[in-house]
Amino acid sequence: MKFSLLNQVRVQNPLVHNITNAVAAYFAANGLLALGASPIMADETEEMADMAAICGALLINIGTLRQPTIAAMLAAGEAANTRGVPVVLDPVGAAATALRRETVARLLAEVKFAAIRGNAAEMVFIAGQAWQGKGVDAGSGAADAAQIAAKVAAQYGCIAAVSGATDYVSDGLTTFAVKNGTPLFPKITASGCLLGSVIAAFLAVAERADSLNAVTQACTVYAVAGERAAAGLAETQSGTFGVKLVDALAALTAEDVERMARVEAV
Amino acid sequence: MKFSLLNQVRVQNPLVHNITNAVAAYFAANGLLALGASPIMADETEEMADMAAICGALLINIGTLRQPTIAAMLAAGEAANTRGVPVVLDPVGAAATALRRETVARLLAEVKFAAIRGNAAEMVFIAGQAWQGKGVDAGSGAADAAQIAAKVAAQYGCIAAVSGATDYVSDGLTTFAVKNGTPLFPKITASGCLLGSVIAAFLAVAERADSLNAVTQACTVYAVAGERAAAGLAETQSGTFGVKLVDALAALTAEDVERMARVEAV
Amino acid sequence: MKFSLLNQVRVQNPLVHNITNAVAAYFAANGLLALGASPIMADETEEMADMAAICGALLINIGTLRQPTIAAMLAAGEAANTRGVPVVLDPVGAAATALRRETVARLLAEVKFAAIRGNAAEMVFIAGQAWQGKGVDAGSGAADAAQIAAKVAAQYGCIAAVSGATDYVSDGLTTFAVKNGTPLFPKITASGCLLGSVIAAFLAVAERADSLNAVTQACTVYAVAGERAAAGLAETQSGTFGVKLVDALAALTAEDVERMARVEAV
Repeated sequence: MKFSLLNQVRVQNPLVHNITNAVAAYFAANGLLALGASPIMADETEEMADMAAICGALLINIGTLRQPTIAAMLAAGEAANTRGVPVVLDPVGAAATALRRETVARLLAEVKFAAIRGNAAEMVFIAGQAWQGKGVDAGSGAADAAQIAAKVAAQYGCIAAVSGATDYVSDGLTTFAVKNGTPLFPKITASGCLLGSVIAAFLAVAERADSLNAVTQACTVYAVAGERAAAGLAETQSGTFGVKLVDALAALTAEDVERMARVEAV
Repeated sequence: MKFSLLNQVRVQNPLVHNITNAVAAYFAANGLLALGASPIMADETEEMADMAAICGALLINIGTLRQPTIAAMLAAGEAANTRGVPVVLDPVGAAATALRRETVARLLAEVKFAAIRGNAAEMVFIAGQAWQGKGVDAGSGAADAAQIAAKVAAQYGCIAAVSGATDYVSDGLTTFAVKNGTPLFPKITASGCLLGSVIAAFLAVAERADSLNAVTQACTVYAVAGERAAAGLAETQSGTFGVKLVDALAALTAEDVERMARVEAV
Repeated sequence: MKFSLLNQVRVQNPLVHNITNAVAAYFAANGLLALGASPIMADETEEMADMAAICGALLINIGTLRQPTIAAMLAAGEAANTRGVPVVLDPVGAAATALRRETVARLLAEVKFAAIRGNAAEMVFIAGQAWQGKGVDAGSGAADAAQIAAKVAAQYGCIAAVSGATDYVSDGLTTFAVKNGTPLFPKITASGCLLGSVIAAFLAVAERADSLNAVTQACTVYAVAGERAAAGLAETQSGTFGVKLVDALAALTAEDVERMARVEAV
């Protein structure tokens, strides 16, 4: 597998509009800059249409929902759809509260997403199956993650990425397992949120027909960057890992990823 | 003194609901993850009751007050009280503005707190004494911190923790001095805010009757982690200290804390 | 050139009120603490007048605009003007959306700024020239940055700082080129936002008549801290750079800056 889209991100430096949570904003912006993309965070309804006019992709993350932000998410999603700007959904803690369940349902009904990324518990909820998780954590995820990815993708006509020790990326017909990564990812906050933004950056530079490949490359680049960042660290060095992950996103080359990638069709 | 609650936090991985300020959110989430707890940040009134149903503790921090968030704090506090979920108050810059003074007064009137944590200047205000501080800083704190802790605890029927070079933790009858720590703590933002969240995590896994011990353990674990993180650093390396503090919170064992703890009844 | 105001910041520890964006809040607070100032973030309209009564300077950064925050910016600016508290404007992505264009125009009409800091593209917009930039990035900035600085300063009767590989600081009559810095600055998010806050800290301890010198010192101290932080780092180590920049802001002495400064009148 080639990872040429990483080079495209660095050449095109796409502007990625993030409507993300209060916890992830700083880390996601630094991660996107390190990757080679250009982040912009904005969540005031009034400027969502203008953002859609200048951005290459939109990321909607529901990690810290507020009523004004929900309106902005819907306005931004509609504007992006109108302009053909790819939209990524990160349904953080989707089933934790009625507000999150209703907001996710409304977003899925009113916005066409190019990709949906979540952990097993969140994606199980998106797929309409029984909720098994807790809060915003990955949860037990008893169900088979590859099947969940395929189901979400088929149900919403998008690319679905289920994050975990192994990531599964599917368009509903073909599903890839990305076996790279590190146990340090769940030890830092917003590591999943940043992956959602990275997916948006890759979709910004990809052909629509190439979306499955773009999301798979994004997950692989991110997971390999995590392996690189974790090299030589103890599992307790999560603070240091967060810093080194940003460094690794900037230092990684397409050749590095190609050499280290452990991606298989399932 | 034993520090078995640190192991309990890591075993039970309690979900801690933080209504915290815009500055502290990222650092507090990473610190709680490192400690072994599971953070969730949410401040939309609509989902506060649902949060109380799934969380082991609630932290209310007034560092960046907004009107919608004040309503959420009151709703969350009431819901937590109803369910017996322990609530921690961090009255950041409590006396700096009328809005903060009025909000703290209203929170203290409408919500039953298990613990209140602040610096000397903030706790002096809570205790209704003359304000001597400036903004959100620790201030001069001429009054005796141990007495302030005992007074706040007795006045509000909770555990009071006064942070400083030495922390004082009291239930109004018994007061402990935690002499661990490092001058680097006040050099990084949100170090006090994270302690408030750590106290919430310890209360989430403790028996109510054991709250004084739980808060004392939380303050000691945090102060010892600071000592570990500061080891070998110059006082000017505050950026590095913030990263190493997260590492230290993850690496520290109950035995390490027991060996390093300098806790005395006063 | 002497950099005595750095010592003044550390001696006076001025309280700097930041109405800044959701991405920069954490980094700006840590940077100000490292420098020796005392940060406070607050953006609820109700407490803006109280903030003006206790703060030495106000920074208004439009990076993530929300309607309630716009009202707070106007209230804070008016209160600061009434009390003679210096106000700094950081017009992040000023021309990216109608909301930002209108908000900047309204702020410039209703608030008297002591200093305006932005990248070339943002300052070109402030100067009313043709927009050449993209989103919140520095843009192409074909126009001459020194002229833009002089024009903005003359137009608004303030100090203007145009950030870039070389910073230009002008009062409309005299313009200084600050040639210190590092290519790592644009690789981390909020590096410009933190400079805006640093400028506010220097203005808080300076005589009004000395504002050009104060802003020039602020830009030089910050650029030299960046050089120090970048020493020995690869251009890909942006995560590490962000941490070391905070360390460098704390470790730097006025003598270090005087020795390393490359400042010229143009």
